[in-house]
This record gives sequence, C-alpha cells and structure tokens, in this order.
Amino acid sequence: MLETDSTPGGSTMTAPAAESAAALSPALSIPDFIAHWQGHRDLTRRVIEAFPDDQLFTFSLGGMRPFGAQATEIHLVDAMTVTALRTGGWTEPDWTAGPGTKVDLLAVWDAVSAELAEHGPHTDPAFFNQMHALPWGEMPGWVAAIYAVDNEIHHRAQGYVSLRALGIEPPAFHER
Amino acid sequence: MLETDSTPGGSTMTAPAAESAAALSPALSIPDFIAHWQGHRDLTRRVIEAFPDDQLFTFSLGGMRPFGAQATEIHLVDAMTVTALRTGGWTEPDWTAGPGTKVDLLAVWDAVSAELAEHGPHTDPAFFNQMHALPWGEMPGWVAAIYAVDNEIHHRAQGYVSLRALGIEPPAFHER
Repeated sequence: MLETDSTPGGSTMTAPAAESAAALSPALSIPDFIAHWQGHRDLTRRVIEAFPDDQLFTFSLGGMRPFGAQATEIHLVDAMTVTALRTGGWTEPDWTAGPGTKVDLLAVWDAVSAELAEHGPHTDPAFFNQMHALPWGEMPGWVAAIYAVDNEIHHRAQGYVSLRALGIEPPAFHER
Repeated sequence: MLETDSTPGGSTMTAPAAESAAALSPALSIPDFIAHWQGHRDLTRRVIEAFPDDQLFTFSLGGMRPFGAQATEIHLVDAMTVTALRTGGWTEPDWTAGPGTKVDLLAVWDAVSAELAEHGPHTDPAFFNQMHALPWGEMPGWVAAIYAVDNEIHHRAQGYVSLRALGIEPPAFHER
C-alpha cells in the first residue's frame, strides 16, 4: 500500500544535532507542539470533507493513490504516534485496514483528535529526546513525532492537487 | 503570484496553548529544529534537481503554478525566516523577484542553507516565544518559524505530483 515517498526508512531520517538537549535551548513547549499538530489535523479534516463522497477513494492523479487511501495512511500513522505519546510504545498498524467511506474516516479522525487533545499535552518530556524503536527504524522521539505531522502535510498537499484537478477550491493552507 | 492555499493570513494561524512556556516542558532544542529544517531543505533541493531544466518553470498541473514558481516562493519565505532568526526582523520580499533558472535557484538555495547552518543554531531562545510582526500578521516566533517548514513541505509535495505526472520518480520523502 505504501509508496516510495511515504514510508520512512530508518537511519536516513533527520538526525538530531550532537548538542541536542531541549532543556538547554528550547524552541517550543509540548502544548505548543500539540496545538500545532491539532491545527494541521483540523485542516486535513476539511480537505477530506472537501472531496465528493464518490471521488475520495477513487479519483487518481499521476498514477498515485486516491486521497482517501493517503488520508487513511495519515490516520494510521497519526493514531500510532498519538498512542506512542501516551504509552511510549509503537505498534505497526495493519496498513490494509482502515475506513472505506468518508463518514467512517471522519469518525476515526475525530476519535484520534480527541485522544491527542486529552493526552498529548501531558506527554512525558523525556519522550522527545529518548530513542524510540519504530516499525521503520530507531530515532529520537522528537523526530518520530514531527514525522507524523510532516507525513500529513506531504500527503494532504497531494490531495490539494486532486481537488484542484476536480475543480474544487481547497481549504486555505494557512487556516488551522 | 500567490495562490489562496499559499499565503498565510494572520489571525487564523495556529495559536500557542495558553500554558505555553518552552522552559516548562520543552519538546525540542533549537539545534534539533535547525537540523530538522535543513533535512527538509536538502530534500527540496533534490526535488528541484529532479525536474528537467526545461520543465521546472513551465510544467503545470491542475491549473497550478509550475514547481519552479512554488520553489521560488519557498525560497523567499525561507530566506526571510532565516534572516528573522538572526536579526528578529521580517521584511516582506518582492514575490515577483527570484531566480528564473534551475542553476540560479539552486545557487540561492545553497546560500540560504549556508546561512541557516551558520546562524540558525545560535538563534536567541527568546525568539520562539516572543510575538513577531510578519507581513501576514502577528504570531509567536515558533509558529512563524515552523510555518516556513510547513509551507516548504506543502508546496514540495505538489512538486512530487508533477514529477510523477512527468514520469519521474521523486526522491524518497523520508530521506533527509
């Protein structure tokens, strides 16, 4: 199901700088990061909603997967990451599973957003500097967490192209 | 030049959580953030390089701008943000300016990456929590800084679609 551009591959992920220690020169707080991610999740939700029901899982561009399949992958990566923030554990999801309709996709989307809102701000600060064993390699918690956001922006942007090709104006990128 | 999905618009940007104070629960360090951004800049550079010289500023999909125009906008936003990290000042660039060839685009790209590598890790930690007056509104430094990365991922992903439509395999998304 995964395309070459969508599967993280381990040791080539962004490595933290050698002097990495958030306490020394913090760029942002955990609640800031969670709010940032939720803003992206809200925007992606609007992109999903913007697709006609009968095009979300069928319309394809450039030989790529329909946006419904990409959004399902975003959901699975996000859900795994939100669970990891809470438990520290990373369990690879069944990539072939997932909702097959817009209604079902939005329902699981909202459930993960609610879990992130409830537990995300209380993530153990140690999570971000510790190394974590993900299905696609070992990396610091910060790199693993921001990967979920990056993956979401990347695939959602491809959904923007599909919407434009369908003649639909996508939601404004800057509105979170 | 800017499309609806590409121009930040002020008050609707992600707001920081009320309890925001990086020192209380840091999610990442400044060097980590700079390394993360440089990884994205390296990837975007490879995406620019992957375009045939004669398609970078001409090939269009779904009525959208060619990737050369999008990459130029990424460059201008990044350059403005890198300067702000160093000086605290935000001067809106001339959006109609910019390199018109792949060689020139890569040259200015490398210059900004070098500036980010030299000065970015030494950004004043206060930058990230202070409010900043950007051309598109007032926002905390963290939100302004991550917007540059988000904008880059968003437009680059649309370049991926163009590359696939041109029959070219894009660089792997996870390799930074």
